[in-house]
Amino acid sequence: MTTMQNGVFEMETTGTLMKKGFIALQETYTVEEAITHLRQNVQGKTNIHYLYIVSPEYRLIGVLSIRELLGAHGEKNVTDIMIKDIVAFPTDMDQEEAAQIFRSEDLVSIPVVNCTQQLLGIIHVEDILDVVWQEADEDIEKLLASGKEINFHTNPIVAAWRRLPWLILLLFIGLISGGIIERFEATLEAVVALAFFMPMIAGMTGNTGTQSLAVVVRGLVSEDLTMKSAARLLFREFIVGIIIGITCAIVIAIIAFIWRGSLVLGLVVGSSLLATLIIGTLAGTIIPLLLYKFKADPAIASGPLITTINDILSLLIYFGIATMFISKLM
Amino acid sequence: MTTMQNGVFEMETTGTLMKKGFIALQETYTVEEAITHLRQNVQGKTNIHYLYIVSPEYRLIGVLSIRELLGAHGEKNVTDIMIKDIVAFPTDMDQEEAAQIFRSEDLVSIPVVNCTQQLLGIIHVEDILDVVWQEADEDIEKLLASGKEINFHTNPIVAAWRRLPWLILLLFIGLISGGIIERFEATLEAVVALAFFMPMIAGMTGNTGTQSLAVVVRGLVSEDLTMKSAARLLFREFIVGIIIGITCAIVIAIIAFIWRGSLVLGLVVGSSLLATLIIGTLAGTIIPLLLYKFKADPAIASGPLITTINDILSLLIYFGIATMFISKLM
Repeated sequence: MTTMQNGVFEMETTGTLMKKGFIALQETYTVEEAITHLRQNVQGKTNIHYLYIVSPEYRLIGVLSIRELLGAHGEKNVTDIMIKDIVAFPTDMDQEEAAQIFRSEDLVSIPVVNCTQQLLGIIHVEDILDVVWQEADEDIEKLLASGKEINFHTNPIVAAWRRLPWLILLLFIGLISGGIIERFEATLEAVVALAFFMPMIAGMTGNTGTQSLAVVVRGLVSEDLTMKSAARLLFREFIVGIIIGITCAIVIAIIAFIWRGSLVLGLVVGSSLLATLIIGTLAGTIIPLLLYKFKADPAIASGPLITTINDILSLLIYFGIATMFISKLM
Repeated sequence: MTTMQNGVFEMETTGTLMKKGFIALQETYTVEEAITHLRQNVQGKTNIHYLYIVSPEYRLIGVLSIRELLGAHGEKNVTDIMIKDIVAFPTDMDQEEAAQIFRSEDLVSIPVVNCTQQLLGIIHVEDILDVVWQEADEDIEKLLASGKEINFHTNPIVAAWRRLPWLILLLFIGLISGGIIERFEATLEAVVALAFFMPMIAGMTGNTGTQSLAVVVRGLVSEDLTMKSAARLLFREFIVGIIIGITCAIVIAIIAFIWRGSLVLGLVVGSSLLATLIIGTLAGTIIPLLLYKFKADPAIASGPLITTINDILSLLIYFGIATMFISKLM
C-alpha cells in the first residue's frame, strides 16, 4: 500500500521520513533567475543542497546541485543544465531499502514523489544516518533476543518484562532437550561419561549455528536473495560445516580417548560432533533464509533460538549414535 | 598518536576519512566577492555545501553554508555572517566517534583541522554512512563470533578458516563443563534425571547473558561509561536477574515436580535456575564492562563466549545444589 486514507504514511517508510524544506524551480527559469529566486527563498530553510526543477503540474523533471547552478552561465535555461536522470523514492519504500540506495548513490538528499511523479518532499542523508543506526540496533536486539528498546536508563521492571517473553519461550523449547535425554535414560545410566560431553557438543552446535546466522542476516541487508544465491550459500555453508566438523571432530576424539581411555567413546563423541556441526551450520543458514523467504524478518531467528534448536538436534544425534554403539561403550 | 612519520594517518580515523574537495574563503571577502569566487571555483568539486573561512595562515575561523551566503546582503563581509562556533575534528579521532558527532550535530560535512587549527580536509556524511554500516557489521560479527568478513561470496575454505579459531577456543572452554560434570559423577549416577534439566539450565543462563551483553555493547556505542553509570547498570541488571530468575524458577519448579513427581527435584531445579539466571545476567553485564574498562572492545565478549562461560557457571551451581540435597533426591 502507498498511503492510508488519511494521508498518513506507513511507519518506517520514505513517506514518513521525508521533509518539506526543499526549493523547486519552474522549468522556464534561466540560471540567473534561479539564483535570484534562490537568494530570496533560501532563508530559514536548512539543508538546501539540490534544487528540483518541476513542470507546471509540479512533476519532477530534473535536479541541479547549488554547485552546478552557481558554476553555470547566467543566460542558460535551468532545463539545459539540469540532470534528467533522477533518483527518486516512492512514498512507500522501506527506510532500510532507502538507506541502501543512499549508500550506493552517494547523494546528500533524494526527492520523494507520488505515483504521478509530483514532488512531495525530500529525504536527507542525516536522517538516513539515524535509520542505519536504528536498524543496526534492531538487528542486534533481535539477533541476541535482548528485547526491544532496553538501554542504560530503562528501569529494571520494564527491562525484565521486555526480556521475559523470549526467555519463557526458550525455557519451554529447552525442556524438549530434557525429554530427549529422558528417552535415552538407559544409555545415559549405562555410560554416565556420555554426560561429560553433552554441554560441549550442544554448545558447539549452537556456536556454529549463530556464526552462520550472523553471515546470513547481515548478508541479507545488502544482497538480493534469489533461489540460485540461496542454493549457493547453502552449499557453501555445507562445505564449511564439513571442514569445521572434521577439524573439531579430530580434536575432540583425541581428547576423549586420552581423557577416558576409550577408543569407542572417542569415536562416538568425534563422529557426533562432526554430524552436529554440519547440521548446526545448515540450521543456522536455513532457518533465517526460510524466515526471509516467507517475508518474516530473518533476525528474529535470534542466536538464542538457533542455539536452543541446535541443542535439541545435537542431543538427538549424540545419544542416537551413542545408543547404536552402547554395547561397545560399556 | 596523531600522524605517522610519512604523513599517513591511522586506520579508521578522521585523518584517513577526510577529503580535499572543499572551498575556503579568505576572511577579507565580502558576500558578493565570495559568491563570485564560488562560481569560479565550484566546477568539478562535488559535495560543496559549506564554505570555510580561513585566516591568512589558513587557520579555520568560521563556516558558512552556501544557503546562508546566498541569503545574505552582498556588501556584508563574510566574517560578519559566518558561524564562529565551529564543529571540527582532529585528525586522530576514531571514525565511530566521528559518526556519533555527525549523528548529534545534524551536519552534512565537518572540517578536519590540525593541532594549530589549520584546515586540512572535510568529512562528508555520506562517508560516515558507510562507517556506521561497517561498524554495525563489525559489532554483529564479534557479538556472534562469526569471524571477520564472511559474506555470501567468501569461498568455503576461507570462511571455515576464519570461523575455526573461535570454535576451537570455545571447544576447549566447553570441555571445562565436562570436567565439572565428571567431578559430580556420583551425584549424576545416583539421580540420572538431573541430566534432563542440564541443557535447559545451561541454555537459559546463556540466553539471559547474551541479552545483557546486547544491552551493554550497543549502550556503550552511544553512552559514556562512568563508575557511577556502571554501578547503576550492574544494580539494574541484578534486579532484572532476580525478577527473571524468580519467574522462570517458579515455572520450571512446577514443571519438574509434575514431570518427575519429586518435590525436592522441583525445588533443586527451580532454585538452581534462580541462582544461575542472576549470575548469568551479571556475567553478561560485567564481562563486556570489564573489557571496555581495560580498553578492549566489549563486543569480543561474544554471545558464544558468554554462553560458554555461563554453561560452566550454571553446571557448577546446579550440581552443587543437587549434591547438597542428594540424600533427599534419591
